Amino acid sequence: MRDFGPSEMARRNYLFETIREVFKLFGYQQLETPAMENLSTLTGKYGDEGDQLLFKVLNSGEFLKKVSEADFREGEHNVLPKISEKGLRYDLTVPFARYVVMHQNEITYPFKRFQMQPVWRADRPQKGRYREFYQCDADVVGTDSLICEAEILMMIKQVFAKLGIPDYSIKINNRKILTGMAEVIGEKGKEGDLCVAIDKLDKIGLQNVRDELYQKGFSVDSVAALGPVLEKERRSNQDWFAFLKEYLAGSSTGMKGLNELEEVLAFFSQLGGAEQHVVFDPVLARGLSYYTGAIFEVQVEGVQIGSVSGGGRYDNLTGVFGLAGISGVGFSFGVDRLYDVMDALGIFPDQQSEGTQVMLVCFGEEERKKGLALLSAFRKAGIAAEIYPDLDKIKKQFNYADKKNVPFVAVIGAEELVNDQISLKDMKSGKQEALSLERAISAIINSSLK
Amino acid sequence: MRDFGPSEMARRNYLFETIREVFKLFGYQQLETPAMENLSTLTGKYGDEGDQLLFKVLNSGEFLKKVSEADFREGEHNVLPKISEKGLRYDLTVPFARYVVMHQNEITYPFKRFQMQPVWRADRPQKGRYREFYQCDADVVGTDSLICEAEILMMIKQVFAKLGIPDYSIKINNRKILTGMAEVIGEKGKEGDLCVAIDKLDKIGLQNVRDELYQKGFSVDSVAALGPVLEKERRSNQDWFAFLKEYLAGSSTGMKGLNELEEVLAFFSQLGGAEQHVVFDPVLARGLSYYTGAIFEVQVEGVQIGSVSGGGRYDNLTGVFGLAGISGVGFSFGVDRLYDVMDALGIFPDQQSEGTQVMLVCFGEEERKKGLALLSAFRKAGIAAEIYPDLDKIKKQFNYADKKNVPFVAVIGAEELVNDQISLKDMKSGKQEALSLERAISAIINSSLK
Repeated sequence: MRDFGPSEMARRNYLFETIREVFKLFGYQQLETPAMENLSTLTGKYGDEGDQLLFKVLNSGEFLKKVSEADFREGEHNVLPKISEKGLRYDLTVPFARYVVMHQNEITYPFKRFQMQPVWRADRPQKGRYREFYQCDADVVGTDSLICEAEILMMIKQVFAKLGIPDYSIKINNRKILTGMAEVIGEKGKEGDLCVAIDKLDKIGLQNVRDELYQKGFSVDSVAALGPVLEKERRSNQDWFAFLKEYLAGSSTGMKGLNELEEVLAFFSQLGGAEQHVVFDPVLARGLSYYTGAIFEVQVEGVQIGSVSGGGRYDNLTGVFGLAGISGVGFSFGVDRLYDVMDALGIFPDQQSEGTQVMLVCFGEEERKKGLALLSAFRKAGIAAEIYPDLDKIKKQFNYADKKNVPFVAVIGAEELVNDQISLKDMKSGKQEALSLERAISAIINSSLK
Repeated sequence: MRDFGPSEMARRNYLFETIREVFKLFGYQQLETPAMENLSTLTGKYGDEGDQLLFKVLNSGEFLKKVSEADFREGEHNVLPKISEKGLRYDLTVPFARYVVMHQNEITYPFKRFQMQPVWRADRPQKGRYREFYQCDADVVGTDSLICEAEILMMIKQVFAKLGIPDYSIKINNRKILTGMAEVIGEKGKEGDLCVAIDKLDKIGLQNVRDELYQKGFSVDSVAALGPVLEKERRSNQDWFAFLKEYLAGSSTGMKGLNELEEVLAFFSQLGGAEQHVVFDPVLARGLSYYTGAIFEVQVEGVQIGSVSGGGRYDNLTGVFGLAGISGVGFSFGVDRLYDVMDALGIFPDQQSEGTQVMLVCFGEEERKKGLALLSAFRKAGIAAEIYPDLDKIKKQFNYADKKNVPFVAVIGAEELVNDQISLKDMKSGKQEALSLERAISAIINSSLK
């Protein structure tokens, strides 16, 4: 797990603010849930592997009270439920589902919420994968309108435009198209295995996907029938749709998925969205089995970092908590990966204005009295200001301003005291001028607006 | 632990933003540390009671691997270190100290950092006390300049002024004054017991404080000598200082504390601070034993909620991690309590502009096509906008806007479509007008500026 120092925090806050602004512009409202949830809420939602990766919190006090010697000899499986009742959240989706069920009577549907909080996974740390990382989720539940999907495409494009990320693709697919594929190749009902296998196409290659399908019992004929899908030529979205209209003709589910997809893109176009960056990908499955409609995933070109955003529609998010029939669609930005992307591309904006804008350097005690009054005047003008707190050597004071990247230093010596002026030094250009307080304030504000 | 829905989040963000702005104005830079720290970092820093209240995280995988049957029979004390290595942070001070030691060579001193993150305590939940709550800390380390203390007083006053909290007191004391008191009453070296007892004066009353001191071995004479301090009359700060000048004359440490206090207030006055709300309190000790100089605590009048802010100077924060001689001073806002205070006083500002500002209601499919284009135009103008995603009954759509407190509804029916206009309804006044897009945008922006 990582510490974030001042310059990283300034950049992270820039990402959070950019995403938050877009979420709010689209009518999403913020929600926060606690770090700990009951293990009964968390377990069984992320598959066996996910359950392994949950951080479990030890019950407080005499945590061994309920554990018998027999339990102990049986091992972890018997001991765990007796010493731990809570775990750290693994994502923001399950806590959101729990929230919707708990507050179902207060919520106005459709409910558009966003959530930006850390999640924890007891994973082996590696590049781009952390044990503590932030997710920024936006979901809308209580409507099956495909306008929501179109708005998600708009939001992703808007965030990327604001961040200045030039080359990326928003891959889009529909779970029903995957279901339809399984049907038309003669393997109806096996879309689960199909998804798991073809989802890995980019990672393991065509032959390995085929082998995995054979192992799962797919016939040679059906794998051959998948050919035109797996041997993805570069086609335009429109060419793909034309192809699928024939390919999926035998599956009403598949055709429904295709229609949904076309409708999403129609709404997207009515919203003024340009299809640039939006790429249909027939093998996109995102592993997760709970998607029932649209599936999204965003990849940035030119960097070796996994997907930075993804999501999809689910028809039964809250069913597992006893509230059926709530359809929703959502997506998530991985801020830690976005950070790595921006950093790798070198496109973070200059964050100089985030920190202190002026530092006061005083020659002696009398000057410092004056300095303290000026300090408050700068702050009253909205300028982040500090005074070097000790009467150290002037050089040491300047060094401090330099190391902290403070753009202006205001020097107060004997002469400035007599003339009621400030010697304002622009640390970048090295230029120094004797100014009145008012003119110094203007100079600093004008410079920060550049 | 608590969920925070949209309206609570808007208010909480307002508090965080207000505090963050002031911290930044004073030159503090943001830091974030991970939720989990090694238990070796956390334990032994908060006393026995604190150690009990740490949330411990179970090691992942085969957590019982290292536990022998003998350990198990010995109980929690032997088992804990073998099944848990990490805990959730209990405050932001210890992680900050750990950070300073880890990054000592990269840090420019004086190092001014702020941190706004949740902390966790396995406490029995009660009013004003939560198991998960946010702290907002600002500390400066690497200087013993008393300007820092004066700036803390300024920051507290500025935050309270911005929040509009009218009646509050910033109690201030100095640990050396407490040490001096122990000396002059003839109980030198026993200021620890003295602090613990007199700190409770407001809670348990004079007689109980005296009894506790007797129990701790204080003589009748020395408790009697404390009389003028404990029987706190309402004196002005200046009267107190005059009194203490004689009372503490026999203790050089006590006199040093008094001088420090007067110097803090002199710097505060040079910064332009008015002494209103700043109250010297000779029995303020804040329990914590690591304060070595100034001690602060802020109480809001008119509400039964504990202190909302507090802090002090410590001369050896990082000594326990092997880095001695780093003096610092810091303080913290308890945002959850500040929330309760603001809520109890009914002084949260109207947060209407936080949410969606306009919702589009469309009569049919053709109108919706137009509506989607308008939606993007509103957002392009920076107006948070949404469209009701389904073609439901108009009344249902209006109900949604009403429940979500959306101030404007833009209606698009057949007539509006023909005239290329929007019927903009002000939900508060009920007034409805047919407007061009441009005029509708102006109307919404002007209304939100009010």
